Amino acid sequence: MKKINLIGSTGSIGIQTLDVVRSHPDKFSILGLSFGVNIKVGMAQIEEFQPEIISVGSLEVCEKVKQQITYPACILYGDHGLIEVATYGESEVLVNAVMGRIGLEPTLKAIEAGKDIAIANKETLVTAGHIVTAMIEKHGVQLIPIDSEHSAIYQCLHGNIDKEVSKLILTASGGSFRNLTRSELEGVTVNDALKHPNWQMGAKITIDSATMMNKGLEVIEAKWLFNMSYDKIDVILHKESIIHSMVEYIDGSVLAHLGTPDMRVPIQFALSLPERLDLKGGERLNLWEVGALHFEKMDKERFRCLEIAYQAGKQGGSAPTVLNAANEIAVSLFLQGKISFLDIEYFVEKALDGHTPSNDPSLEEIISLDDEIRNKVLSYIS
Amino acid sequence: MKKINLIGSTGSIGIQTLDVVRSHPDKFSILGLSFGVNIKVGMAQIEEFQPEIISVGSLEVCEKVKQQITYPACILYGDHGLIEVATYGESEVLVNAVMGRIGLEPTLKAIEAGKDIAIANKETLVTAGHIVTAMIEKHGVQLIPIDSEHSAIYQCLHGNIDKEVSKLILTASGGSFRNLTRSELEGVTVNDALKHPNWQMGAKITIDSATMMNKGLEVIEAKWLFNMSYDKIDVILHKESIIHSMVEYIDGSVLAHLGTPDMRVPIQFALSLPERLDLKGGERLNLWEVGALHFEKMDKERFRCLEIAYQAGKQGGSAPTVLNAANEIAVSLFLQGKISFLDIEYFVEKALDGHTPSNDPSLEEIISLDDEIRNKVLSYIS
Repeated sequence: MKKINLIGSTGSIGIQTLDVVRSHPDKFSILGLSFGVNIKVGMAQIEEFQPEIISVGSLEVCEKVKQQITYPACILYGDHGLIEVATYGESEVLVNAVMGRIGLEPTLKAIEAGKDIAIANKETLVTAGHIVTAMIEKHGVQLIPIDSEHSAIYQCLHGNIDKEVSKLILTASGGSFRNLTRSELEGVTVNDALKHPNWQMGAKITIDSATMMNKGLEVIEAKWLFNMSYDKIDVILHKESIIHSMVEYIDGSVLAHLGTPDMRVPIQFALSLPERLDLKGGERLNLWEVGALHFEKMDKERFRCLEIAYQAGKQGGSAPTVLNAANEIAVSLFLQGKISFLDIEYFVEKALDGHTPSNDPSLEEIISLDDEIRNKVLSYIS
Repeated sequence: MKKINLIGSTGSIGIQTLDVVRSHPDKFSILGLSFGVNIKVGMAQIEEFQPEIISVGSLEVCEKVKQQITYPACILYGDHGLIEVATYGESEVLVNAVMGRIGLEPTLKAIEAGKDIAIANKETLVTAGHIVTAMIEKHGVQLIPIDSEHSAIYQCLHGNIDKEVSKLILTASGGSFRNLTRSELEGVTVNDALKHPNWQMGAKITIDSATMMNKGLEVIEAKWLFNMSYDKIDVILHKESIIHSMVEYIDGSVLAHLGTPDMRVPIQFALSLPERLDLKGGERLNLWEVGALHFEKMDKERFRCLEIAYQAGKQGGSAPTVLNAANEIAVSLFLQGKISFLDIEYFVEKALDGHTPSNDPSLEEIISLDDEIRNKVLSYIS
């Protein structure tokens, strides 16, 4: 029985993580659980999985949980509560399914507490990859990807040594606007952007997919997860999202991971590895029904955010922190209807242009820089 | 330095095996070498790689080699010579690149001599899979596939345990006649059949590809190589031959091996594993240049030989021996212009229909049955 602490339980990845736990009650249980404000979904999860410790986003939600819960549990809230859940008890693994930079500190504390990290929260690695990976090594725990692309690469690498790998190839669906030209992007709405062609996901990642920043964040995440230099990480457009990603070896062999767009596959693999478990109720890939898989060269002028992310990644130091903070706040402004779609990349680039990167920033510097950049981007519209 | 005995050196796989050895002189050397009658190519190989032992197809060729050779070596001929080369000296591995059932006895003798077997000769496993695999286990040596499909599966399995595998999926290009209906097959010529759309190979395997018997033999080969039941081995039409084959796992993950159609990749992997080496001069796969990969359901009525092979495989015992012997002789008759293309499958089916399979046939029974079936199929045209 693997005991799990899950943060971000009411988001898309959180809900599907609990699906996986529900389908294998002999293999997995939930020890700690955390969500923000979705009390309806969160209370149902609490009653079903009966975690020993719970944390929520605010004092108000915390009071409501205390009123409604039917069994004894420790109920907390806020940043402190999130860290308590992440580090709690005898759990073996933290599933980090929160959105944005908020996932960073609970991850670091859970590593210190000796827990493996199953990570869906790419912003954590983008903003502080050097700190996270150093701590993973120091504490001898595992960092396991949940993103379908990185899980695919992890499975195609299966422990192969770096010197035999010539390239990681991330596939990109192209997102909601893959068939639009740059000039056609000018008038797009939030609703248009939220219609991803292949995957049902949260709002932030769906917008990131439309701007192609998501793939840029994934490139940086891949750099840290697999200790790979940027010139060995490629992106290819593959609109069906059936090939989740690939590894090219020095002998010309390319190993690929394929499947239906079902996030329970990488989530379950992250929890069950090195073993594989039956995917209950999962649809199997049938390639002759799919008929054809298509591939196109990635156009970095059309998808400018990908190029910006590569540049920030190669620049290194504090640049990815700026990239991520500016993007988080710009996407949030776009979702609030306050800026246009193309403003997202414009604001991110502006924030990076105005920044002189420091090398090897500390956690405190990253957190302070993150706040500073968010305020700066907010100031662009005031 | 891995020392290699190679049988079938002047065929397509043999030549490419020597390409691999030539490109890694620090890793591989040729200790024993055998070919049939192609003395021009064979003598050049002998002088370049200077094997200690050589065997050829006839006394006449043997005499010519003795006249032309410029260094001292042991030079033999015939079945006895083939076995001497296969089992010779301190080599670690036998590369079996001969065509047809003739590869069986050298393989068994090499296993007894403690050598790993890198096998391109699928007829050996089809006709006597139960004997070969039992001996592999008894002598604790490795059986490593060279066929691109089986090498792909081997790489996608990477030691995963049987219970986690739900299906092996072999890809089939469809061969020279994939766009023809059954009625259009009636008038096809030998020259038409020898034009394979994707791979440059020997005549026998190219005809087997056109009849789809090649995929049927591969299904039986996969059963023995990977200890998999026939209901877990599927075939899908994939005309680009870029995905070489796939493994579906119980969690819905599908791992695939992709690459350009370059047989040096699986040959080199069979010789270098578990390590991978740089493929010198090899073209890299570029999926956006390929553009699209297509998949179709395999039509077993159109490609009748595949269905016949599945039936013979499932029947087991001596049935695959009959399938293989009848096919070898029928293809040979077709290549000689003595029978039509559709007669190949007709003759194979007729041979199987007239046979009552015996269980667990011995090597002697297999060799005797193989001769009997060859004579019987010859009698169909007399």
